[in-house]
Amino acid sequence: MIPTPQMIPTPEGNGKIAILLSGGMDSATLFFDLLDAGWAVLPIRVNYGQRHSRELDASRQLSEYAAKRFGERVMEPVEIDFSALGRQLLGSSQTDATVPVPHGHYADENMKKTVVPNRNMILLAAATGVASSRETYYLAYGAHAGDHAIYPDCRQEFIDKMAAALLVCDYEPIVLVAPYGGIDKRGILERGFRIGVPYELTWTCYEGGDKACGKCGSCQERLEGFAANGVTDPVPYA
Amino acid sequence: MIPTPQMIPTPEGNGKIAILLSGGMDSATLFFDLLDAGWAVLPIRVNYGQRHSRELDASRQLSEYAAKRFGERVMEPVEIDFSALGRQLLGSSQTDATVPVPHGHYADENMKKTVVPNRNMILLAAATGVASSRETYYLAYGAHAGDHAIYPDCRQEFIDKMAAALLVCDYEPIVLVAPYGGIDKRGILERGFRIGVPYELTWTCYEGGDKACGKCGSCQERLEGFAANGVTDPVPYA
Repeated sequence: MIPTPQMIPTPEGNGKIAILLSGGMDSATLFFDLLDAGWAVLPIRVNYGQRHSRELDASRQLSEYAAKRFGERVMEPVEIDFSALGRQLLGSSQTDATVPVPHGHYADENMKKTVVPNRNMILLAAATGVASSRETYYLAYGAHAGDHAIYPDCRQEFIDKMAAALLVCDYEPIVLVAPYGGIDKRGILERGFRIGVPYELTWTCYEGGDKACGKCGSCQERLEGFAANGVTDPVPYA
Repeated sequence: MIPTPQMIPTPEGNGKIAILLSGGMDSATLFFDLLDAGWAVLPIRVNYGQRHSRELDASRQLSEYAAKRFGERVMEPVEIDFSALGRQLLGSSQTDATVPVPHGHYADENMKKTVVPNRNMILLAAATGVASSRETYYLAYGAHAGDHAIYPDCRQEFIDKMAAALLVCDYEPIVLVAPYGGIDKRGILERGFRIGVPYELTWTCYEGGDKACGKCGSCQERLEGFAANGVTDPVPYA
């Protein structure tokens, strides 16, 4: 059973919200969910030394597509370059070229190798700095129920503690908006189909090939989400 | 009246602790305080696009000095390169060349210009990733009472919220050690003189000249701390 999704808030304050737009389907859905609700959205993509640039390309294309549809409410996107940091974060297949990408289901123990140490706190902290320097005091985060088993920094407990820290880190309180904590990829896709998210522009696969591999945990979870909705994934698979 | 300093903990776990070693006098004192207490210490310095490299040079020299005195308990230092991020964080005199360094006392309103948006959360998050990738699950942070008025991310409230988030961000809980929350620069120097901190190697001035300017808020607070202890600052002033 999928818990009831938490609500997308209606615009508050100056109506501006930043989002960590990775290029994956979760943050893409949240991006359009926020635009649909009337927010002005600042898309932030982060180069943290990923093996490939497919995700970053997807993030850029999603911003361009959204700007055509929603006009000025899509703020000028920002790319943060953390590639040097990536080299410091050892032991993860996402940034360390000596660690192979594990195949298999997300729930498997070996998927821990895909964890970039403390990645999400680093991304949230940096995005907050970029957002507040642009007078944007809301920050959206697409963590969802499906990630919880493996990634500590996607769990509701982590989100709640980070939200508390963000309220006191700056002169203006930063409000963390993470409305997908109670739903999984199936539920996220349900929302996305309703509001017309261009999933053909998103990139989920951990590998950086011409086509998605269909084998990594990320691909498997995506494919399960599309199948559960009875929809064919528009992204080509190898 | 200076409140009683919080205790430096004795080594726990595997005895390893990371520290954000900026090159300033606060983190330098904490570095030697931890070595004196028996910890193995991982020094982390961060290039976040500062105007000058004096602080980074000081951090490197402090690590080298400590390695001669404490041997293998000084772990191989790590430099994180956040210089690209610095360009994203607009409006601060520390990273934006179009904003002049303000002169005057720290308590003045215009010192807000020295704030890099969300700097300390970004540094703590990145240091945590680096530390945990090196099996180091304690993180030391030299925030002190004197910083509180101006910098939201040096206040005890922020430290407490970050400590709570760090406990749940990773597979291993990360323990934040911030024992100077109750003392100011005078109290920090009192501790440092007792354990022989080489203050001639530290750099406090916001400017990057050959000599410290003696005018910026940072210099003024340092000079007040030395004067209160009846000691002459070994760093040369212009």
